[in-house]
Amino acid sequence: MSSAEAEVLAANRSFYEAFARGDLMVIEALWAQHVPVACIHPGWAALHGRDQVLASFRSILGGGSGAGVRCTRPSASVLGEIAYVVCGETIQGAELVATNLFVLEGGEWKLVHHQAGPVHRRAELRSPPTGMLN
Amino acid sequence: MSSAEAEVLAANRSFYEAFARGDLMVIEALWAQHVPVACIHPGWAALHGRDQVLASFRSILGGGSGAGVRCTRPSASVLGEIAYVVCGETIQGAELVATNLFVLEGGEWKLVHHQAGPVHRRAELRSPPTGMLN
Repeated sequence: MSSAEAEVLAANRSFYEAFARGDLMVIEALWAQHVPVACIHPGWAALHGRDQVLASFRSILGGGSGAGVRCTRPSASVLGEIAYVVCGETIQGAELVATNLFVLEGGEWKLVHHQAGPVHRRAELRSPPTGMLN
Repeated sequence: MSSAEAEVLAANRSFYEAFARGDLMVIEALWAQHVPVACIHPGWAALHGRDQVLASFRSILGGGSGAGVRCTRPSASVLGEIAYVVCGETIQGAELVATNLFVLEGGEWKLVHHQAGPVHRRAELRSPPTGMLN
C-alpha cells in the first residue's frame, strides 16, 4: 500500500469514527471547502453543496447520539490529488456498500462525495448473476 | 457549463445510451484502462477491476437486450483530470440514484467507478429528515 493510500484510508476511518460517535465538528471539517460536494444517503435523493450535505448530517445525528455505523473492508484508489474509497458499512444490522470520494486540499484528504446503498443477500436478488456477488 | 463539464456529461450520456441498448463493445471502451476501476450495481457488493466489472455488464446484458435504463438530471463536477457525475436512473419503473466517476485518459473521459442504488419515496422512509429529500 502506498503512503497516499494509507492517508486516504486514515481520512476515511476518521469519517466513519466521527459518524459513529456523532461528532459533527469533525464531519464538517472533513468535507472539502473548495470543490463542489455531494452526498447520497441510503434511499435518499442526491444532496448538492456543503449546506445541504452538512445539514443532512446534522439531521441524521440530531439526537446527539452517533449513527452506529461501522466501516468494513475499505479499499482506496489514488488518482493524483483525487482518491476514491469503496467499502462496506454496517448500520444497525443492515449491510451497505459505499463510495467515498476525496480530494487533496491543503495537504489533507477531504470528502467530496459520499454514496451509500443497501447490499442484498443472494436470496433477495431476483436474478443473481453467477459469480458476481462477493 | 464549462466545456469539460459538457464533455463529461457527453461521456455519461454515452454510457447510459450503450447500457440502454445493450452495447457491450461501447461499454467496454468507456471503462478506463490505466487506473483501478470498480462498480457497485444496485443491491450488489462492490466489484473491483476491469475483469469483474465488464463481466458484470455481460451478465446483466447477456440476454442480448438492453437494460432499459434512462439517465435523469445529470450533474457534473470536474476536478482537474477527474470528474464525477451524480444523476438519477430509471429502470423498469424503479427510481435509482447514481454516481459515475470519470478520468481523462488519452484525451477522453473514461469511467473509473459506478455506483447505483434505490431512492425511496418519502412514505417508505422510516424517519424522513425534514426538508432533506428532493
